[in-house]
Amino acid sequence: MKRSKKEIGKKVGVPPGTLIYTGDKREEFEITAIDYNASGYRKIKVKDIDECASFKDPSTVTWIDVVGLHRVDAVEKIGKIYNLHPLVLEDILNIHQRSKIEYFEDYIFIVLKMLTYDDKSHEIEIEQVSMVLGDSFVFTFRERKLDIFDPIRERIENDKGAIRKRGADYLLHALIDIIVDHYYIILEKLGEEIEGLENEVITNPSQDTVQAIHKFKSNLINMRRSAWPLREVLSQLSKGDSHLITEALIYFRDVYDHTIQAIDTVEMFRDMASSLLDIYLSNISNKTNEIMKVLTILATIFIPLTLIAGIYGMNFKYMPELEWRYGYPMVLIVILVIGIGMVVYFKRKKWM
Amino acid sequence: MKRSKKEIGKKVGVPPGTLIYTGDKREEFEITAIDYNASGYRKIKVKDIDECASFKDPSTVTWIDVVGLHRVDAVEKIGKIYNLHPLVLEDILNIHQRSKIEYFEDYIFIVLKMLTYDDKSHEIEIEQVSMVLGDSFVFTFRERKLDIFDPIRERIENDKGAIRKRGADYLLHALIDIIVDHYYIILEKLGEEIEGLENEVITNPSQDTVQAIHKFKSNLINMRRSAWPLREVLSQLSKGDSHLITEALIYFRDVYDHTIQAIDTVEMFRDMASSLLDIYLSNISNKTNEIMKVLTILATIFIPLTLIAGIYGMNFKYMPELEWRYGYPMVLIVILVIGIGMVVYFKRKKWM
Amino acid sequence: MKRSKKEIGKKVGVPPGTLIYTGDKREEFEITAIDYNASGYRKIKVKDIDECASFKDPSTVTWIDVVGLHRVDAVEKIGKIYNLHPLVLEDILNIHQRSKIEYFEDYIFIVLKMLTYDDKSHEIEIEQVSMVLGDSFVFTFRERKLDIFDPIRERIENDKGAIRKRGADYLLHALIDIIVDHYYIILEKLGEEIEGLENEVITNPSQDTVQAIHKFKSNLINMRRSAWPLREVLSQLSKGDSHLITEALIYFRDVYDHTIQAIDTVEMFRDMASSLLDIYLSNISNKTNEIMKVLTILATIFIPLTLIAGIYGMNFKYMPELEWRYGYPMVLIVILVIGIGMVVYFKRKKWM
Amino acid sequence: MKRSKKEIGKKVGVPPGTLIYTGDKREEFEITAIDYNASGYRKIKVKDIDECASFKDPSTVTWIDVVGLHRVDAVEKIGKIYNLHPLVLEDILNIHQRSKIEYFEDYIFIVLKMLTYDDKSHEIEIEQVSMVLGDSFVFTFRERKLDIFDPIRERIENDKGAIRKRGADYLLHALIDIIVDHYYIILEKLGEEIEGLENEVITNPSQDTVQAIHKFKSNLINMRRSAWPLREVLSQLSKGDSHLITEALIYFRDVYDHTIQAIDTVEMFRDMASSLLDIYLSNISNKTNEIMKVLTILATIFIPLTLIAGIYGMNFKYMPELEWRYGYPMVLIVILVIGIGMVVYFKRKKWM
Amino acid sequence: MKRSKKEIGKKVGVPPGTLIYTGDKREEFEITAIDYNASGYRKIKVKDIDECASFKDPSTVTWIDVVGLHRVDAVEKIGKIYNLHPLVLEDILNIHQRSKIEYFEDYIFIVLKMLTYDDKSHEIEIEQVSMVLGDSFVFTFRERKLDIFDPIRERIENDKGAIRKRGADYLLHALIDIIVDHYYIILEKLGEEIEGLENEVITNPSQDTVQAIHKFKSNLINMRRSAWPLREVLSQLSKGDSHLITEALIYFRDVYDHTIQAIDTVEMFRDMASSLLDIYLSNISNKTNEIMKVLTILATIFIPLTLIAGIYGMNFKYMPELEWRYGYPMVLIVILVIGIGMVVYFKRKKWM
Ligand SMILES: [Mg+2]
Ligand SMILES: [Mg+2]
Ligand SMILES: [Mg+2]
Ligand SMILES: [Mg+2]
Ligand SMILES: [Mg+2]
Ligand SMILES: [Mg+2]
Ligand SMILES: [Mg+2]
Ligand SMILES: [Mg+2]
Ligand SMILES: [Mg+2]
Ligand SMILES: [Mg+2]
Ligand SMILES: [Mg+2]
Ligand SMILES: [Mg+2]
Ligand SMILES: [Mg+2]
Ligand SMILES: [Mg+2]
Ligand SMILES: [Mg+2]
Ligand SMILES: [Mg+2]
Ligand SMILES: [Mg+2]
Ligand SMILES: [Mg+2]
Ligand SMILES: [Mg+2]
Ligand SMILES: [Mg+2]
Ligand SMILES: [Mg+2]
Ligand SMILES: [Mg+2]
Ligand SMILES: [Mg+2]
Ligand SMILES: [Mg+2]
Ligand SMILES: [Mg+2]
Ligand SMILES: [Mg+2]
Ligand SMILES: [Mg+2]
Ligand SMILES: [Mg+2]
Ligand SMILES: [Mg+2]
Ligand SMILES: [Mg+2]
Ligand SMILES: [Mg+2]
Repeated sequence: MKRSKKEIGKKVGVPPGTLIYTGDKREEFEITAIDYNASGYRKIKVKDIDECASFKDPSTVTWIDVVGLHRVDAVEKIGKIYNLHPLVLEDILNIHQRSKIEYFEDYIFIVLKMLTYDDKSHEIEIEQVSMVLGDSFVFTFRERKLDIFDPIRERIENDKGAIRKRGADYLLHALIDIIVDHYYIILEKLGEEIEGLENEVITNPSQDTVQAIHKFKSNLINMRRSAWPLREVLSQLSKGDSHLITEALIYFRDVYDHTIQAIDTVEMFRDMASSLLDIYLSNISNKTNEIMKVLTILATIFIPLTLIAGIYGMNFKYMPELEWRYGYPMVLIVILVIGIGMVVYFKRKKWM
Repeated sequence: MKRSKKEIGKKVGVPPGTLIYTGDKREEFEITAIDYNASGYRKIKVKDIDECASFKDPSTVTWIDVVGLHRVDAVEKIGKIYNLHPLVLEDILNIHQRSKIEYFEDYIFIVLKMLTYDDKSHEIEIEQVSMVLGDSFVFTFRERKLDIFDPIRERIENDKGAIRKRGADYLLHALIDIIVDHYYIILEKLGEEIEGLENEVITNPSQDTVQAIHKFKSNLINMRRSAWPLREVLSQLSKGDSHLITEALIYFRDVYDHTIQAIDTVEMFRDMASSLLDIYLSNISNKTNEIMKVLTILATIFIPLTLIAGIYGMNFKYMPELEWRYGYPMVLIVILVIGIGMVVYFKRKKWM
Repeated sequence: MKRSKKEIGKKVGVPPGTLIYTGDKREEFEITAIDYNASGYRKIKVKDIDECASFKDPSTVTWIDVVGLHRVDAVEKIGKIYNLHPLVLEDILNIHQRSKIEYFEDYIFIVLKMLTYDDKSHEIEIEQVSMVLGDSFVFTFRERKLDIFDPIRERIENDKGAIRKRGADYLLHALIDIIVDHYYIILEKLGEEIEGLENEVITNPSQDTVQAIHKFKSNLINMRRSAWPLREVLSQLSKGDSHLITEALIYFRDVYDHTIQAIDTVEMFRDMASSLLDIYLSNISNKTNEIMKVLTILATIFIPLTLIAGIYGMNFKYMPELEWRYGYPMVLIVILVIGIGMVVYFKRKKWM
Repeated sequence: MKRSKKEIGKKVGVPPGTLIYTGDKREEFEITAIDYNASGYRKIKVKDIDECASFKDPSTVTWIDVVGLHRVDAVEKIGKIYNLHPLVLEDILNIHQRSKIEYFEDYIFIVLKMLTYDDKSHEIEIEQVSMVLGDSFVFTFRERKLDIFDPIRERIENDKGAIRKRGADYLLHALIDIIVDHYYIILEKLGEEIEGLENEVITNPSQDTVQAIHKFKSNLINMRRSAWPLREVLSQLSKGDSHLITEALIYFRDVYDHTIQAIDTVEMFRDMASSLLDIYLSNISNKTNEIMKVLTILATIFIPLTLIAGIYGMNFKYMPELEWRYGYPMVLIVILVIGIGMVVYFKRKKWM
Repeated sequence: MKRSKKEIGKKVGVPPGTLIYTGDKREEFEITAIDYNASGYRKIKVKDIDECASFKDPSTVTWIDVVGLHRVDAVEKIGKIYNLHPLVLEDILNIHQRSKIEYFEDYIFIVLKMLTYDDKSHEIEIEQVSMVLGDSFVFTFRERKLDIFDPIRERIENDKGAIRKRGADYLLHALIDIIVDHYYIILEKLGEEIEGLENEVITNPSQDTVQAIHKFKSNLINMRRSAWPLREVLSQLSKGDSHLITEALIYFRDVYDHTIQAIDTVEMFRDMASSLLDIYLSNISNKTNEIMKVLTILATIFIPLTLIAGIYGMNFKYMPELEWRYGYPMVLIVILVIGIGMVVYFKRKKWM
């Protein structure tokens, strides 16, 4: 979950709408436009940003996918062509933006977090996806060229489902739906992880278990931070306050439903993780207790016997027992009797 | 509470309304229609799904109970005949759906969780029941052929209570009421369990107790997850916002009341379980403390005595005490006096 | 707080309004009617339930007190005469009902919990009291013939206060007021208890203290469960939404005030009980720490000395020290010096 | 914070508006009336309560300060003259009343808690102050003759600030303002205390520290209980719902502001106190750990050496080592080597 | 975070609007006025406060920055010239004021907390900044001459961004924006700190770690106290309820967004800090457990062996084994066998 935050200092006191990219420098830069309606489909790799202006035609839906936010100039140019507010552009470039939705007269601006799970480091990776919904276009802005949106592209290309017959709001829904679906993939991974941790805590707890629980909790904290604002966004979208969202309303309600359930699961995991730590601690306490019992039983049995041996090891001239014919076996018997008596006593006390 | 979640990956990026069954494959498949009014009663095993269309007659109430969600084709066909939205069908087939209620123009769609308690594994089993209320019909969709709804069937058959004289909303109430009644059966089991755990923690705590508390808490977490959305659903139903619910309104209010009380009990159990774990921990700490006292008392009494014996076991040539006539008994007396003195001291200090 | 819950199973799937008494079977059964207005007063032991019909006369206020809910038939008959909804009768007989208020056209139905404190078992006992307020009558239904309402009876009989001059709503207020007053008596007991526990935890904590805290917390959980819904009921009553409550409104506001304060106190006790457990644990940890210090000091002082004695107890032929004239006193001095040195060292380290 | 609660039993079942003083019997009883307007000022020790009627003149503002609530008769008489509701009089005399505000047609009734801090016992003392605001008068009722209101008296006498030029609502504000100012004095004391506790926990924690934290938390619980309802009262007052509060509205807003900040501070202290207890516990755990290390190191070094000495103290006839010329120094060297080796080992393991 | 609170006592009972400076006495005092519009710019060091009146001209925007609140007379004079309410002036001088916004007819009054982080003491320093927004002017009042507002001054001077073309509300936004930006700088520092603590807790926990966590938590508590009211202020500002805020509305919405995110981060840090303490404790418990194991293993191995040696060190006359030719080596072998056996046993039990 580590991300560069070195840019924070730079932003202090600069005028609002000043465009600064706050992520890591990257190589990838690519603008792909997909232009379609029920009867046709076109996919263009945009070289010259001015081409974008040609997609404004309201008879087709256009999805313009911008990969590579380090190209501040490109984002700025798009902003000018499509008349986006400078504050919107600033948020697009600031990859530490909280998820949110903002309504403007001609468009809706949405920031979301795309989550992916790194199976090796067991960490959740977060990528910011900004979206702009106009009356016949959708913009997506993101840092890296991940293939998460490929299924949508394919549905448009192959005219699968209703997507080609519907408007830009339906396209927006499809894109957001994929992002929310990825939350479920992560929840599934986390679900497997906590099941594993549960086993470990009960059968074979170690300090590593605690660290794994800690990492799990950190991941949950990150999920929560992304999921709650996501829910807010979808709650807004499913209320239908904007004229830009019409026929897709019921579909946003469906996705909203999924975000609620995702949050439910996150909160459930949180409760479970807290519970695991409590069990770990009681487990350790219990073990220390067991070890102390072993030590105490041993000491209680042997230390008095050692005293007896010590007494008959003294060098006094006048110690009648030492002269007795059966002194030695008698002491051995005494030692045995005391030892066995102690064991019986501890068994009765349920310490053994 | 384990359920197959393998289907999650499949759902990423598919168009909304795509019908995918997310549960385990099963054999059972059965559609039973019960058609009745005050004067008559008919029970049909539906073989050909097209028969269902014949039940649309508004002069009788029809309850169509579909068991076996793996038959996606059947659900789809019913959806077409009764004009259900594809998103509704998708939710019916997705058995991981959160409980909810959705209002459509001609019908109300409800998802609930049926809970049963497995006495052997001490686990709560969850089955999803989806319901559709139209003006003269109720659909129930579920995975397995459990006999939970038999009492309703019997009431209709034998004209017990008012059910035959009332509409589809009253039938819906009767079905939901049974589901909520089962929550109480589980709460009763959990109540017995926590009473047992309470005893165990106080009289004979062990690591098993902690694991039992943990299992109990997991069960509670699951109950909470089902109970809170259930309450929301019933709160909605008892508000009477839909023209489909008329005379049954007061009965939904009654069931709503029960859900509040169920949640109250769940929250009470939660508080009690947290409290139990605290008591367990204090119990273990206390025991470790007691064991340490035994060890310390023992060591404090015997180690100095062992030193004395050790001293008179030294082999110095000139040790006058060794020559004394009553050296040996004197040492024995010193040892006894010190030993008894220590015991008295610890008794005073309330350690013994 | 134990109550029979054996009837839960019986209620699954039965039609709403089916009358089942869920409490323990009892012997007591008694209906007492008190009929009064400013000018007169009449007290009747009702033998035949049909007599009840005669109290409908609106020129007098009638209070009908029904003791003994196992007589389902009697409750049913009253329900018919006074036209009470079957769901109301069902709630009256179900003694596990949550406290609540329900408005009907001609009457208000209220369920409350009467709490009493058993001084021997230190447990709170709960009895359900159901009330029905009509325009000129009040019904009270309860399981056992406790004398809690005697002060009201006496006020009516002796024309004390304004009760005889006022309507049925004022009578309802008087009855509820007594119930709330009993919450204060219990809070007083709990207050004394937690003060005692506070002392015990600080001066003489033992495992019994933890169990007492646990019992105290269980009692609080029960109080909370009764007090919060009680507050809701009184909040409703003091809002004056019903035409049945007129002049008594300000008095309900007064009782509402008391319920808020009672809840405040319960929550305060909860915080205090949590705090006590924390102190108990820190106390035990501290004691274990002290005991460990004693053991460690002792071992640190004596074990090295025992080694010295052991060395000079070895039987080597050539051990020059053994031959020395002052070998023995020198070793004794060395032992003393080391022992005293250790004590000084530990004193400096503040362990002693 | 101890107050007599013996009167609770007496109040069960008595008619509402029955006047019972619930505090301790006291000697002080004094009614002081201050009558003023912009042009004049008069201070009267009221002997005969009937005099009070003469202050009703609306051209002057009158503040009647009643000290000594055990004189139930006096309060009752005042109630009659100024037409106060019996429930108001009952609340005035019940010193366990929760802080609140109640609007009547001709007056506003307010109950507040005056807090003072006892520097010796480190306890917060609570005194109830009831106030009645009419169109040209303010009543204050309190148990003890504390001098808290002297600054107001002096401001009226010496015509300081605007008080003489303004109405009764401004006077009420001045009185409440002083009460809220005293909350800040207590917060200051608590602030010093928690700073002290913080130091103690870190530098020199003992069981006394825990008890001091506990006392601190109890004080906070009491402050919270007084502060939250106080805030509610001031929130009401600053909303301006009553015709009795006009020009003083902005001043009530100012005091409301202070109550919010006071509560903020209380909540901050609460968080800090919880944190302190956690640190205390970790400190003790750490110390026990250190002590255990000392014991274990010592035992690990000396116990094996003692065995060696014990072996050569055995009396076998044939033990060749005992005859060796350098047996004894060799054993001494072995002992030294093992001892030093152990120390080195533990240093490496970072236990020493 | 220490600030002088000695003035609290002085404020008890004084009339509202009495001007008392509650901070430390300082030397700095400076009033700087910047007067600008799109076409021109003027910066004046104000010597005589009466000059301020000249800036009222509505055709230019004026920012008057007052540094040094100990000069109560100056603040009072400004208040008179600009007609500020005495309660506003009182709040400006009371540097312990909670952040808030208040609407007056002609101006808006805002109190905020400027946070800076002291890298040496790891403490957050808080300075109060009060602001007054009129139709063509903004006042800022602060204690110390920090250079935080320099970037704004520079933007005005050099006509950077839109600031010169816009009104006083935009200027207010710019000032508040800088304050909020500083919250991010502190969050960045805290983020680095908690990352360090996380490492420390896992790799090398000590009592210092706990103290560092405690300090971290205290800093968070302080941040929360400043951040939540800040959020409230910005929520108000971005609602646009005042005629004084027009074109800057969308910019306030942007800053509001940042405060939400800052609070999100603070809450996340809180959760993480709580988690760290839990891990620390489990770490210590684990270590104590390990140490106990070492001690117990050692004692279990050597104490029985010491008894054997002790037995053959007894001086009985008749001990046949002592005479045996191979008695000594046999005992050595027995000792070895028992010792190795024990080690094997503990290895099997996974204690070693
Ligand atoms: Mg939830
Ligand atoms: Mg939670
Ligand atoms: Mg939760
Ligand atoms: Mg939740
Ligand atoms: Mg929890
Ligand atoms: Mg916790
Ligand atoms: Mg509740
Ligand atoms: Mg609850
Ligand atoms: Mg709870
Ligand atoms: Mg709860
Ligand atoms: Mg709790
Ligand atoms: Mg907990
Ligand atoms: Mg409260
Ligand atoms: Mg609470
Ligand atoms: Mg609380
Ligand atoms: Mg509370
Ligand atoms: Mg708490
Ligand atoms: Mg706690
Ligand atoms: Mg805790
Ligand atoms: Mg706060
Ligand atoms: Mg808090
Ligand atoms: Mg707080
Ligand atoms: Mg708070
Ligand atoms: Mg906390
Ligand atoms: Mg806690
Ligand atoms: Mg958040
Ligand atoms: Mg939190
Ligand atoms: Mg949070
Ligand atoms: Mg939060
Ligand atoms: Mg938390
Ligand atoms: Mg905690």
